[in-house]
Amino acid sequence: MKLTKLLPLAAGLVALPALGFAQEAAEVDMTPPNAEIGYIFTTFMFLVTGFLVMWMAAGFTMLEAGLVRQKNTAMQLMKNVALFSIAAIMYYLIGYNLMYPGDGWTITNVLGAFGWTSLEPVGLADTETDLTYASVGSDFFFQLMFCATTASIVSGALAERIKLWPFLIFVVVLTGLIYPIQASWKWGGGFLDANFGFLDFAGSTVVHSVGGWAALAGALILGPRIGKYGKGGSVHPMPGANLPLATLGTFILWMGWFGFNGGSQLYMDTAGNVADISRIMANTNTAAAGGALAALILTKVLYRKPDLTMVLNGALAGLVSITAEPLTPSLGMATVIGAIGGVIVVFAVPFLDKLKIDDVVGAIPVHLFAGIWGTIAVVLTNGDASLFGQLISIVIVGAFVFVVSGLVWFILKAVMGIRVSEEEEVQGLDIGELGMEAYPEFAKG
Amino acid sequence: MKLTKLLPLAAGLVALPALGFAQEAAEVDMTPPNAEIGYIFTTFMFLVTGFLVMWMAAGFTMLEAGLVRQKNTAMQLMKNVALFSIAAIMYYLIGYNLMYPGDGWTITNVLGAFGWTSLEPVGLADTETDLTYASVGSDFFFQLMFCATTASIVSGALAERIKLWPFLIFVVVLTGLIYPIQASWKWGGGFLDANFGFLDFAGSTVVHSVGGWAALAGALILGPRIGKYGKGGSVHPMPGANLPLATLGTFILWMGWFGFNGGSQLYMDTAGNVADISRIMANTNTAAAGGALAALILTKVLYRKPDLTMVLNGALAGLVSITAEPLTPSLGMATVIGAIGGVIVVFAVPFLDKLKIDDVVGAIPVHLFAGIWGTIAVVLTNGDASLFGQLISIVIVGAFVFVVSGLVWFILKAVMGIRVSEEEEVQGLDIGELGMEAYPEFAKG
Amino acid sequence: MKLTKLLPLAAGLVALPALGFAQEAAEVDMTPPNAEIGYIFTTFMFLVTGFLVMWMAAGFTMLEAGLVRQKNTAMQLMKNVALFSIAAIMYYLIGYNLMYPGDGWTITNVLGAFGWTSLEPVGLADTETDLTYASVGSDFFFQLMFCATTASIVSGALAERIKLWPFLIFVVVLTGLIYPIQASWKWGGGFLDANFGFLDFAGSTVVHSVGGWAALAGALILGPRIGKYGKGGSVHPMPGANLPLATLGTFILWMGWFGFNGGSQLYMDTAGNVADISRIMANTNTAAAGGALAALILTKVLYRKPDLTMVLNGALAGLVSITAEPLTPSLGMATVIGAIGGVIVVFAVPFLDKLKIDDVVGAIPVHLFAGIWGTIAVVLTNGDASLFGQLISIVIVGAFVFVVSGLVWFILKAVMGIRVSEEEEVQGLDIGELGMEAYPEFAKG
Repeated sequence: MKLTKLLPLAAGLVALPALGFAQEAAEVDMTPPNAEIGYIFTTFMFLVTGFLVMWMAAGFTMLEAGLVRQKNTAMQLMKNVALFSIAAIMYYLIGYNLMYPGDGWTITNVLGAFGWTSLEPVGLADTETDLTYASVGSDFFFQLMFCATTASIVSGALAERIKLWPFLIFVVVLTGLIYPIQASWKWGGGFLDANFGFLDFAGSTVVHSVGGWAALAGALILGPRIGKYGKGGSVHPMPGANLPLATLGTFILWMGWFGFNGGSQLYMDTAGNVADISRIMANTNTAAAGGALAALILTKVLYRKPDLTMVLNGALAGLVSITAEPLTPSLGMATVIGAIGGVIVVFAVPFLDKLKIDDVVGAIPVHLFAGIWGTIAVVLTNGDASLFGQLISIVIVGAFVFVVSGLVWFILKAVMGIRVSEEEEVQGLDIGELGMEAYPEFAKG
Repeated sequence: MKLTKLLPLAAGLVALPALGFAQEAAEVDMTPPNAEIGYIFTTFMFLVTGFLVMWMAAGFTMLEAGLVRQKNTAMQLMKNVALFSIAAIMYYLIGYNLMYPGDGWTITNVLGAFGWTSLEPVGLADTETDLTYASVGSDFFFQLMFCATTASIVSGALAERIKLWPFLIFVVVLTGLIYPIQASWKWGGGFLDANFGFLDFAGSTVVHSVGGWAALAGALILGPRIGKYGKGGSVHPMPGANLPLATLGTFILWMGWFGFNGGSQLYMDTAGNVADISRIMANTNTAAAGGALAALILTKVLYRKPDLTMVLNGALAGLVSITAEPLTPSLGMATVIGAIGGVIVVFAVPFLDKLKIDDVVGAIPVHLFAGIWGTIAVVLTNGDASLFGQLISIVIVGAFVFVVSGLVWFILKAVMGIRVSEEEEVQGLDIGELGMEAYPEFAKG
Repeated sequence: MKLTKLLPLAAGLVALPALGFAQEAAEVDMTPPNAEIGYIFTTFMFLVTGFLVMWMAAGFTMLEAGLVRQKNTAMQLMKNVALFSIAAIMYYLIGYNLMYPGDGWTITNVLGAFGWTSLEPVGLADTETDLTYASVGSDFFFQLMFCATTASIVSGALAERIKLWPFLIFVVVLTGLIYPIQASWKWGGGFLDANFGFLDFAGSTVVHSVGGWAALAGALILGPRIGKYGKGGSVHPMPGANLPLATLGTFILWMGWFGFNGGSQLYMDTAGNVADISRIMANTNTAAAGGALAALILTKVLYRKPDLTMVLNGALAGLVSITAEPLTPSLGMATVIGAIGGVIVVFAVPFLDKLKIDDVVGAIPVHLFAGIWGTIAVVLTNGDASLFGQLISIVIVGAFVFVVSGLVWFILKAVMGIRVSEEEEVQGLDIGELGMEAYPEFAKG
């Protein structure tokens, strides 16, 4: 039984202090009109927000396919379809049970949690289930999409040079073990939640920074693309081949984020909860707007000509920034939090280049840096958050994911190699690894 | 307090005559099973239809990016992301409160309405709110998307020659002032609603024609693209660079329109209301189909070869046409109303060219001309509409928006210039204004 | 009155044996908390799942536009917009009433069923309607999208050589007559349902194989593209021009399928029903994942380099395979059923080529072959299915659709010709039939 199901029973005891916990129980209004109706509302809400988050997989795919060069596009498409498929399977084989180890978070429970996810029986009777939460199937469907998101983040950063198969093996480990283990520390009622009062509503740290740390470890071990960094600190720009695709991907992600943050309220059984979800969606939208406009104005000021890919990444950074706490800020505050995310991206992209860390689509600035910012920003609007609790949790999650990911990348490198040959990289991964082209009839310019 | 919240209380008095008012109260069946359940239903309906309307921003972006030429594509993407972001912020800074000036529509109320939108407190208790409508957050989220739509319409018409920054300043005025002021006349309970019995269910006039008038004023002041109109009335075709994108945009808009029209029922708390929403979505779909097929057949007859962009615009014109009254027509009548919209577009595009009004994507035929037609067509199926009330409202809204928009464009032209240099226009706005290309690796044909 | 509305009244009698019937009644838990609330839940569920299935029309369009060659892309876009529009109109003119012939399925009822669909009156009162099911408008909206899907399948297989107008006439017959007649045999309570206990939850046979059979008949009569098959059995590959579009289309279809299968539960008025919908969506997702990964691994093993279009079609085949029974399998079993669908596609594509049946996008392997597999696979997890009942229904539906479609194609060929001229085919249908190009500014490679 999921911990989330038990918590509402005790919610009368926590009342206001529980605000903003989300993803493990945000029940503040304990008089649903009728348990079964509340169950249907919350379950259907998970299904709707779940398909929105699934849609983000398409968003990442289009974003990344638009930001790589022509010759690596088919490979980027392949990686994204494959990683989503792997996440779908690993999460029911291992991830879901591992993430929610059940009644109390103990090592025994965690070890006992390995086992296939089982959904409700077909044609469930009301009497067979606890009606205070939602169907397990809907919860699984929703949570699975978060796990997949983590892997999508990694594929963008490491594009244009990583081999297909080691990448997919990494995805197996990430979605089956790394993501669920650290997610259980917060959302499964683990020690970050219990001991540090860590607040991360929809996953600025638990989802986005995790993808970012895994990407960073990979980027360091993999090294930059050939020709990206010249002598004397020169940076050779390698612009994306198809900006309409990248823009489409950004809009898809923007839309999907309403599900990502809205669904993380976890309940829609009362007027209070549905009003909170409304507030969350409005804040999510305005944070993205803030991030986009901040990047627009800042790149205009810094470079005289505004940069479209920065604006797109600014919007995404705004979304990541508001994800740790989309409920408590006012619309104005949400805009500011998002805008700071956009500013971070504009400065972080050249900063990474200075360090010769080659992140093809800007995933590390967007998901890791803005994710850290968003996690810290919780303290600005949510009185239950402590700066210490937020920082220590950022560090613990970061250290765990970075070290374990680095280890996995290192082993993969030693065992099978993770980088394509120089010849293949120059020629493009599409021909080398797949023997096909994404745009076979379009002449190269 | 929103006027919409008070109206249901009086709905018993109006009953059937209230049919088709929508967007300000279409409550015809006043026995919701339970106030809180009705509140959750209506609120969630706004969130779902709201994200569909938000998705239309992506639809406009793809449509326009597909219909401009390669060299202006990145700029068109930039404008669309930026305008949506600006709308998101202006609407809570000014627009929303201005549009719904509160208990009774008076000058005092309107002036007093300037002020940031404030959503419900976090963790709202049932007793703190009026449960007869929906959460303010969801209403704001939904209405915001309508405001953003207006701006999207303008960007398409003025593409390929307008400067970025004056365009964005215009968007600030349009979404912060022009749109909300005239929308308040109808949906905020203002004089068009009160004195003329104006009916505009989801905004053929209030949204679409407003975008169209603002675009028309801009197109006249801006002038046509270089080389578009030759001597002796010759028109030089400048086909869009990427028709799959334009088609995708059309499908996105078609899908989003289910939210646009369906959500404008404003209530989903009774069987009668949800049946009305169903009827609206079915009618919306068939009107789009009618518009597409009318344009298909008509272009085949007129030009021997059917024209894809006309078919796409025909579908959109069908959607605009049904928007003023998607509820009362039968499926057959909705098809006819949409089909006439499609016919209008096929004749209006060359008509504008004859007048040397250069509308890059056909936004004026689709949103202004079909919007006027749709507003008039309300009298065909809704007995509460009067031809006089519809026409006078079309004229008043049109005059206001055209004059104010024209003034703003004129001031922008005088102060900072609104048109890129001739050299920049020939070279393409992407290089000139942004210093980047949308498809940098694809050879020009 | 729809048969579906009557069945719940008798559902107490059937209880568990009714499992998995779906699309004609899957009510297993007959204590909805309140009839009107249940009506609102189910109706809104149809609207949400209905717009998801409508979105699949965009998915097919992008998939097919990405898999044809540049020179035929605009035509493929045109066909898809037009076929969806035709389906929208034919289904209310004839299809819907024909498919649900009313109280008891008799020849008289069927003949009497010709007549326009009429939706509920505007502002329906609770007392005017049966609250045990959903609004007619929502049911019509949802079922219409299934009808349109059938036509989308055909357009892909016959791409790059079929004339526009005969294709559209075929669509008129398919969506107005062929699809609804055979669908009534199962979902309208006809003889396949009554006499053979045929189970097809969301339409592996009723929708997907029907599209597949119609496409097969067309492909045989139309013949392969010029140059596709050389002497001595050589096959000339004609790769799709835009794989990002094809991948986008696949993701759209994947997302839309949650509506396709989830909505086919037909009820969301109880905890049991919403839990079933959750289970269905989770299974649908994992079956797609299984199909994609199976195709990925198998093409790697067979051809050394994995094939992206096979992976995309593998995912779609996984979706088709689970469609006949997405409810009763476990997550693991759903993955296996989907994976076998993926394997079928990898072998079926070269098999069709050996027979010189030219299916441009792989629609016949995906929708017909995987559809047959999925229909048979029902017996693996649903005890109410019999192998005989499934096989005889596959054969009856297949024979009917193949023969009637073949007849229609044959008549069209005789009367007006169905194939463009050799010159036009070589030059591309876009120029020949439409006089325009999909990518006019991109140089050919």
